[in-house]
Amino acid sequence: MGIIVQKFGGTSVGTVERIKAVAEKVKKTKKEGHDVVVVLSAMSGDTNRLITLAKEFNEKPSLREMDVLLTTGEQKTIALLCIALHSLGLDAISMTGDQVRLKTDSTHSKARIIEVESANITKQLKIGKVVVIAGFQGRCENNNITTLGRGGSDTSAVAIAATLKAIECQIFTDVDGIYTTDPRVEPNARRLDFITFEEMLVMASLGTKVLQLRSVEFAGKYNVPLRVLSSFKDGEGTLISYEKKEYGMESPIISGIAFNRNEARFTIAGVPDKPLIASKILYPIGNANIDVDMIVQNTVGNKQTDFTFTVHREDYDETHILLEKVKADLGADSISANSEITKVSIVGVGMKNHPGVAQTMFKALGREGINIHQISTSEIKISVLVDAKYMELAVRTLHKAFDLEKEPFEEK
Amino acid sequence: MGIIVQKFGGTSVGTVERIKAVAEKVKKTKKEGHDVVVVLSAMSGDTNRLITLAKEFNEKPSLREMDVLLTTGEQKTIALLCIALHSLGLDAISMTGDQVRLKTDSTHSKARIIEVESANITKQLKIGKVVVIAGFQGRCENNNITTLGRGGSDTSAVAIAATLKAIECQIFTDVDGIYTTDPRVEPNARRLDFITFEEMLVMASLGTKVLQLRSVEFAGKYNVPLRVLSSFKDGEGTLISYEKKEYGMESPIISGIAFNRNEARFTIAGVPDKPLIASKILYPIGNANIDVDMIVQNTVGNKQTDFTFTVHREDYDETHILLEKVKADLGADSISANSEITKVSIVGVGMKNHPGVAQTMFKALGREGINIHQISTSEIKISVLVDAKYMELAVRTLHKAFDLEKEPFEEK
Repeated sequence: MGIIVQKFGGTSVGTVERIKAVAEKVKKTKKEGHDVVVVLSAMSGDTNRLITLAKEFNEKPSLREMDVLLTTGEQKTIALLCIALHSLGLDAISMTGDQVRLKTDSTHSKARIIEVESANITKQLKIGKVVVIAGFQGRCENNNITTLGRGGSDTSAVAIAATLKAIECQIFTDVDGIYTTDPRVEPNARRLDFITFEEMLVMASLGTKVLQLRSVEFAGKYNVPLRVLSSFKDGEGTLISYEKKEYGMESPIISGIAFNRNEARFTIAGVPDKPLIASKILYPIGNANIDVDMIVQNTVGNKQTDFTFTVHREDYDETHILLEKVKADLGADSISANSEITKVSIVGVGMKNHPGVAQTMFKALGREGINIHQISTSEIKISVLVDAKYMELAVRTLHKAFDLEKEPFEEK
Repeated sequence: MGIIVQKFGGTSVGTVERIKAVAEKVKKTKKEGHDVVVVLSAMSGDTNRLITLAKEFNEKPSLREMDVLLTTGEQKTIALLCIALHSLGLDAISMTGDQVRLKTDSTHSKARIIEVESANITKQLKIGKVVVIAGFQGRCENNNITTLGRGGSDTSAVAIAATLKAIECQIFTDVDGIYTTDPRVEPNARRLDFITFEEMLVMASLGTKVLQLRSVEFAGKYNVPLRVLSSFKDGEGTLISYEKKEYGMESPIISGIAFNRNEARFTIAGVPDKPLIASKILYPIGNANIDVDMIVQNTVGNKQTDFTFTVHREDYDETHILLEKVKADLGADSISANSEITKVSIVGVGMKNHPGVAQTMFKALGREGINIHQISTSEIKISVLVDAKYMELAVRTLHKAFDLEKEPFEEK
């Protein structure tokens, strides 16, 4: 028994019936003997309605006032859930970000959390109350209302769980856990009981969308066990934590396959090989706020270099224009560009100790005639670029090659 | 030049267009050189929508959580008005009740104001900002969100004006001022340029609905000049203050005529005349939370009393039942009841020095064949009960008898 933080997103509190269902879930956890802290988002649709309303006055409304406006969404749901909990006979009390004393910096619309006070929450837990907290919001040192930006409610939940030393921070979503890969691409995809923070971070950064990267980083930093669960059906979900061994399992070599459909790849060929060539090519692109991903520099023959990198597909046109200028400036030979490209990655902490993983991957893809354009690796992932048309085939091939449809071994 | 507090109600901020119109009014006052503090209600309809939503969970929702829920309404309008003001080139900042530090007691849903801090507001005024404050809301000493109940935004505005020593607190409504009487009853009714607090208090308690009694009391107590204005058309409105003399006018004898349609009158006749008879009759009625208004006790003949009083018409049935029991208990002769009765009152501080006023009133009504059932007087008002069917005729007759359609004299 201990403190459990449960976070429900906008879809989970989107209607009266769903709020009632959330109340039942909270009641169940409370009856199991836990102290329960609930963190809520605004009802789905409310935030967009408020943004639309604000834009009737000003296309670029003040960020400070937008924060004042949007935080009403969560304030509404916390009151409603408390009222619903009272109807189930539970004692519950709502708290705004301010009442918790969730302190942030003053970057309106994407503030960073500085500190969360625990005293106000624990005082209520001690007298048996369920504490229902507005996610996404805080106060800066000047007492202005701030919001935490995209995925902010997850971040609130993790920060509160860290402060309270909660035994678990449960993130309720519209999926029932983290899968070996997207089940819409590979129907044999399997829900993972467990995944490490490292893996989850890499999966999230490589395109797995269940959790915001930021809240995973935050949970990892403060060692808050995260559990992803469905708001709509029962189940154990997926636990995200540091140590698999605690859970009596040997690491599987590969935990999952991530993919990112929207990549574009550029090669600028025949660049005279001078110092700082990479920075000269990438500077104007970074300056235009375009994220550059996989980079390869390859010196061919005498004093000439081919330089290749990927960007997000929506930046394709702008990158192309910028690169034409770079080509002229540097006296390069040519640019080749491909916007029909996909990144597929295998992720697993187990690969650290299994040197044959890359070869298994390349062989499996090769057997299916899938050409690999580019490779990038880190300690716990291998990413390859393939033609977009092979994306689904590549994912299914790798899923099978690494036996991901099967449960990993229990204890060695 | 000085600080002006402008309060706009729910109808005045009920749509995007109306909020834009409010922004224009605020801009005009600011351009005249005043420091402007705006106090807002929720958009009309929003509060009722939130109440309906809460009742989906619980017919009697927690008052604490209802305060959390309902205060989102004003928080929404203050942000929107600031965004609208920015579009007009004005510097504006919103403040919740908490950010102002408007402290109340902890009676959720009808909290009383304890203190309003001025520092946070004046700091913003000093740097040229329009300060837009959420009405109706505050915080109690335990940092819970509270609301001030019916007319709460007016009360917020008056309290803030008192704290800031504002030169005027302007209440914008859907009428353009206080009239000598209701123009729907007497088309010749005239807007008053001025009325004293005493008169306004009596008018409000006698049925004139433009201002809540509580905010008038509050303004009177802290000597905050109030001005009632229309949100929808230009004009000077009506100033409510203590001293007419400042405004270069001699008091008119009568300032206005108030009426209350929904009265019911009971007489319990032939009550044996014993000590405490009034309390024995009225105790069960007061106990049922029924307000008793005009009371007359008249001892007729030997040891018997007729006892007469009025109640609100909606309490007619309940009062009748209670009174039958009283009749039996006390051994009284009979009860007569009349639910078709109206109270008409003339109000004016000038009548203190004009003894003939009552006679003018009674004569005027008598000339029209209007029978007076009962009379009640105070220093600055005379109320009479007449049959409901004569209400309009009585109002028009008195309006004419006291020349209310004419402007009062300038200086004697």
